[in-house]
Amino acid sequence: MKTLPEIQTILSTEIEKINLDKNPRGLYEPIKYTLSLGGKRIRPALTLLACNLFSDDIQPAVNAALGLEIFHNFTLLHDDIMDKADVRRGQPTVHKKWDDNTAILSGDVMQILAYQYMANVPEKYLSKVLNAFSEMAMEICEGQQFDIEFENRENVSADEYLNMIRLKTAVLLGTALKIGAWIGGSDDKDAELLYDFGINIGLAFQLKDDLLDVYGDEKTFGKKIGGDISCNKKTYLLIHAKNLATGKDAEELNFHLKTTELSDEKIRVVTELYNRLGVKKICEYKMDFYYDKAVAAFEKVSVSADKKQELRNLAQNLMARNE
Amino acid sequence: MKTLPEIQTILSTEIEKINLDKNPRGLYEPIKYTLSLGGKRIRPALTLLACNLFSDDIQPAVNAALGLEIFHNFTLLHDDIMDKADVRRGQPTVHKKWDDNTAILSGDVMQILAYQYMANVPEKYLSKVLNAFSEMAMEICEGQQFDIEFENRENVSADEYLNMIRLKTAVLLGTALKIGAWIGGSDDKDAELLYDFGINIGLAFQLKDDLLDVYGDEKTFGKKIGGDISCNKKTYLLIHAKNLATGKDAEELNFHLKTTELSDEKIRVVTELYNRLGVKKICEYKMDFYYDKAVAAFEKVSVSADKKQELRNLAQNLMARNE
Repeated sequence: MKTLPEIQTILSTEIEKINLDKNPRGLYEPIKYTLSLGGKRIRPALTLLACNLFSDDIQPAVNAALGLEIFHNFTLLHDDIMDKADVRRGQPTVHKKWDDNTAILSGDVMQILAYQYMANVPEKYLSKVLNAFSEMAMEICEGQQFDIEFENRENVSADEYLNMIRLKTAVLLGTALKIGAWIGGSDDKDAELLYDFGINIGLAFQLKDDLLDVYGDEKTFGKKIGGDISCNKKTYLLIHAKNLATGKDAEELNFHLKTTELSDEKIRVVTELYNRLGVKKICEYKMDFYYDKAVAAFEKVSVSADKKQELRNLAQNLMARNE
Repeated sequence: MKTLPEIQTILSTEIEKINLDKNPRGLYEPIKYTLSLGGKRIRPALTLLACNLFSDDIQPAVNAALGLEIFHNFTLLHDDIMDKADVRRGQPTVHKKWDDNTAILSGDVMQILAYQYMANVPEKYLSKVLNAFSEMAMEICEGQQFDIEFENRENVSADEYLNMIRLKTAVLLGTALKIGAWIGGSDDKDAELLYDFGINIGLAFQLKDDLLDVYGDEKTFGKKIGGDISCNKKTYLLIHAKNLATGKDAEELNFHLKTTELSDEKIRVVTELYNRLGVKKICEYKMDFYYDKAVAAFEKVSVSADKKQELRNLAQNLMARNE
């Protein structure tokens, strides 16, 4: 069994091997830049760890793992244009460092590159891997569309929000695990259990993100606490706060939702309101609910407990993180 | 053998069957709009006609044909954002009718949709079809990048221009034919001959476009004559004119290249200069050169002459067109 650090080392080496020193430089340079910014490579690691549950040889899953990582980075690149985000992983985003057109076209190429890697899985898995990958890719775009639409909608329900984060975040984790399992030789039942594990970990992961943005420690979180509150992002916390607030609380909340300026006072007041209304607890409860569902699905996977240790640790670490 | 109109009818019916009445509407509606704008469906028709050379049954090639048409429309959609084009096929472009973000994300989905159709070719062709498709897709993006870069470059050589239009326009025609041939059961030799046919027709087709933009008849051309001259587009004509002009001619040309305003006087003067320098003839000569190469490759395809009639007619019509 490979450990997570071993797998991350393999992935780093493989990502560096992707040939992007090609012409036109103006097209491939931004892709190289994007892939070099790093990140923890969680998604391709899930693919290789899932493969490793069923097979000692993880090499056949490397192309799929790379395809998923490239696709993930493509979505970040195009999302950053749409969200007008200037910084990603502490560095200027592609549309900032170059321009919008470069970011659009480089992203398009990354999507093709992702498919090129996906198309190089062992031939007997090709058709089902591609179908799962395309379905996931489509769902991620749907999630992004809902996310954009929610910004301009007055009322977004908690269920709509959960569906949006399932599409935008969770299906990629689930599909990364499922594809890795298939290539490792898993049957469909175990692959589906791992998919469920990924979906539920993904939902818990995003709710953890919502919580950290309000209750995290600025030193370890890496960005300013209260960003979501400042811009009135309709997180699970805010959606419930709007539903629960009455009287003076509702007035106070609505007053602050009228501005999007960065104000420490607003962050303080809204956080206190969240505490008073108990939405922190509601969010933690829902996060634990999904985490428990994830673990339950994972435990059912018909592989011995010792082989599962690395994936179990990874899931725990994703939940225990404070950044 | 199916005729071109029969094949275009099949394609229209199949395109209408694509299920785009899905949520989020804001994501799928622009795709439906784009695909409903029509066009002559030349590229998917090439796939089906090439398949029909080798097989009476063209049904197995329909998914690939649709994938290529969806991909082509995706490139137009994203190109229109980058080129800030407001009108396409007489209708407002997606980024005009909706906005840039919608156009980016709907285009991303179209690319995935294209791959979903390509992934549904008969399994024994899947791997080679996908590889050819992805290579082509990458090349088209490279062509678009060169096209953008050329706008801001002082000197673009005729060879660089020809390489750009090969990537941006010709490889799609070549690949559409090659994939159709494979699915029809052709051997690699005939498939490559059809690819060469497509590449050379594509180059001739684009040079014809350059000529029509200056020498076309406004009534049949459908848009204002002289658009390329107005915006100083580095076409095959302009590149040669810049190389050949000396003395007063060079002064006159450089004077007009300093403005991008729409001026009938500029169009008249530059057209006269093109005539005087003989670049119209140079362009026509090169166009005929590629057309002859296309026909020569096509004639070598080991299929009886009567089966080839429909594709031969299509090639002739593409060259004889005045719109």
